[in-house]
Amino acid sequence: MALIVQKFGGTSVGSIEKIQAVAKRVIEKHLEGNRMIVVLSAMAGETDRLIGMAHAIQRVPDLREQDMLVSSGEQVSVALFAMAVKAAGHKAVSLLGDQVGIHTDQKHTCARITSIDAERINAYLDQGNIVTVAGFQGVTDYGDITTLGRGGSDTTAVALAAALQADACEIFTDVEGVFTTDPGVYNKARKIDYISYDEMLELASLGAKVLDIRAVSMAKRFKVPVHVRSTFTNTTGTWVVDEEKIMESLLVSGITYSKKEARITIKKVPDQPGIAAKIFLPISDAGIMVDMIIQNTHDGGLTDMTFTVLRSDYDRAMEILGKVAQDIRAEEVTGDQEIVKVSIVGVGMRNHSGIASTMFQIMSKEGINIMMISTSEIKVSVVIAEKYTELAVRALHDAFALDKDNLPLEVDVD
Amino acid sequence: MALIVQKFGGTSVGSIEKIQAVAKRVIEKHLEGNRMIVVLSAMAGETDRLIGMAHAIQRVPDLREQDMLVSSGEQVSVALFAMAVKAAGHKAVSLLGDQVGIHTDQKHTCARITSIDAERINAYLDQGNIVTVAGFQGVTDYGDITTLGRGGSDTTAVALAAALQADACEIFTDVEGVFTTDPGVYNKARKIDYISYDEMLELASLGAKVLDIRAVSMAKRFKVPVHVRSTFTNTTGTWVVDEEKIMESLLVSGITYSKKEARITIKKVPDQPGIAAKIFLPISDAGIMVDMIIQNTHDGGLTDMTFTVLRSDYDRAMEILGKVAQDIRAEEVTGDQEIVKVSIVGVGMRNHSGIASTMFQIMSKEGINIMMISTSEIKVSVVIAEKYTELAVRALHDAFALDKDNLPLEVDVD
Repeated sequence: MALIVQKFGGTSVGSIEKIQAVAKRVIEKHLEGNRMIVVLSAMAGETDRLIGMAHAIQRVPDLREQDMLVSSGEQVSVALFAMAVKAAGHKAVSLLGDQVGIHTDQKHTCARITSIDAERINAYLDQGNIVTVAGFQGVTDYGDITTLGRGGSDTTAVALAAALQADACEIFTDVEGVFTTDPGVYNKARKIDYISYDEMLELASLGAKVLDIRAVSMAKRFKVPVHVRSTFTNTTGTWVVDEEKIMESLLVSGITYSKKEARITIKKVPDQPGIAAKIFLPISDAGIMVDMIIQNTHDGGLTDMTFTVLRSDYDRAMEILGKVAQDIRAEEVTGDQEIVKVSIVGVGMRNHSGIASTMFQIMSKEGINIMMISTSEIKVSVVIAEKYTELAVRALHDAFALDKDNLPLEVDVD
Repeated sequence: MALIVQKFGGTSVGSIEKIQAVAKRVIEKHLEGNRMIVVLSAMAGETDRLIGMAHAIQRVPDLREQDMLVSSGEQVSVALFAMAVKAAGHKAVSLLGDQVGIHTDQKHTCARITSIDAERINAYLDQGNIVTVAGFQGVTDYGDITTLGRGGSDTTAVALAAALQADACEIFTDVEGVFTTDPGVYNKARKIDYISYDEMLELASLGAKVLDIRAVSMAKRFKVPVHVRSTFTNTTGTWVVDEEKIMESLLVSGITYSKKEARITIKKVPDQPGIAAKIFLPISDAGIMVDMIIQNTHDGGLTDMTFTVLRSDYDRAMEILGKVAQDIRAEEVTGDQEIVKVSIVGVGMRNHSGIASTMFQIMSKEGINIMMISTSEIKVSVVIAEKYTELAVRALHDAFALDKDNLPLEVDVD
């Protein structure tokens, strides 16, 4: 008898009919002899509707009250779902974050789970219930409702799976699983059967939306096997598992891209100690996240500082940096919003040198100028002009033979 | 510095604009130096929308899950309201039933409050917050959410006022207060300035919708002064207070009517011990409430048994009684749905005899046949044909001079 946590997102429970369909699916798994925990998001559109009302009342809604408000969405889903299971003649019970005992810190709207009580859920499971848990929410030690931020229901599911030592955590979504790249960009994109936590982490942080990054991080820490699959089919999706469980690692598992960033350069900065702090402190004080940072040496004790920020922060960052540039006597600040970050990810890189240079060769062959480069143990990212997105993705996908199941011995760059 | 509990119903918080208007009103009272607790219902239509979804999923929704579902409605109201207060520059915090510590028994959808914790609310009040509490909901010892039934927000407000020893509990509604009778039936109806708990109890149980009967009952027990008033004006409404506080009691304070009932007669029942139980047990087993019961002696050891049930239970009651009549060898079962129960209420009746006979005289003068009579210490109810409703109400209102502020020494029946 396995213990399975299944998480269904807002689209999957977006109507009465969809809730009933999900209930049917869960009951089937229950009847196979499994102990079932179901984590649900709010019905599609509900969270946005509630936040819309909040903004109509308060320009910047109070965070504690916003959590109080939006957590009602999951409450509705779980109650209706439990009714659907009962209507079909099976036992079910719904639980909110505070009823489960999903304890968090006090950071409203982006709280972190600190601990989970297993007792009450286990008691309900022992009684034969399908236990339905409101995703996305927790409770502080003081009894205030918190939410875990967008994608928080994934985190709830993985955290429950970890706390209850579930055999699997299945994340149901509107795609078939994790793909080698965006199928919308390249039709040769292939569903990946197994991917390691580390690779999934990189993919998630680089823009793949299929799984929340904190959920992956937690899955890795507690070695929770996560199955990303489609709500609308029965086919196997992608298993996100421990690296050791994957027989043979591909050099490159996936290619991802992000158009959310913009590039900013401060030109001819006096190259003195403490200059980086002078530039980046005002930026971080304004709550702006900086991603890649590159410093090029220049002649005559001057340097160019280039970095990326989210496009949504671009205008604010440019304004702040205009002042900073004057203070530190830099020459000028330039920016470019029409860029894309294309990344290749694969644990195979750990044991194979030359992956990065292969990537650069392919870019060169296609006549694509690389503006910035950033590498980690298992990924290489390049920033290029946005207009080359599709061209770069397809060329890399072909070169690393991602449309083929087997590991290519040689990478074809000709 | 007074402590005031104010309760606003669903219509009063039915839109963003209305929530803002209520917030403005509460803030004004707060700025006068009062400690404010605000109890809110769900936004108008929300509870019905949620229950509609529940019924679309489960013909008879699971009661625990229904409470989980509908309690989300008040959660939304209180969060939005707290935001509205904060947006206006004042301190506010919202609390759910379980966060306050409104403990109830486990009777889902019609739970009774067993105790209330005052600590957390007092702490928030001490910090200068306008404390907003979700009405209608509580929590069991096991942590399950319960609701108090329709009108439950009134009960929440009065219970909080009692637990925190508030100076007043103000119930805001869409009418100006309690009237001598339905102004829609008689335009001479007058707003009552002061009414006793007992009179209000009778009026509420006899069909006046302005205040929930359990709320009145609790107000009486804990001597909470309740002020029923309009959300849309600033005029004083009706104070529901201890009888001793009312200088001079009217003979009759109000006239009310209910069209919700139906009359059933079982004819020629063998008049034997235990026969009443044989008739009413199957009825109560079916969850049907019986209101008035009259037994007329007949000739030859036979009796007629007449009683009233809710019209919504009429068909079921008739079906059950058809079988019962056969079993006990009664002659036949007849019924009438076109009846009305008209009642006069007033604590003055305690000290004045003859009020009932005056009422009968007036009915007789108008040519209205009385089918049933029921009396209590402070009320007289008669069941008459529905078509005479307006005629009876107007005649009684005139006869007892309810349009005049002063107590008439003589009742005019001519």
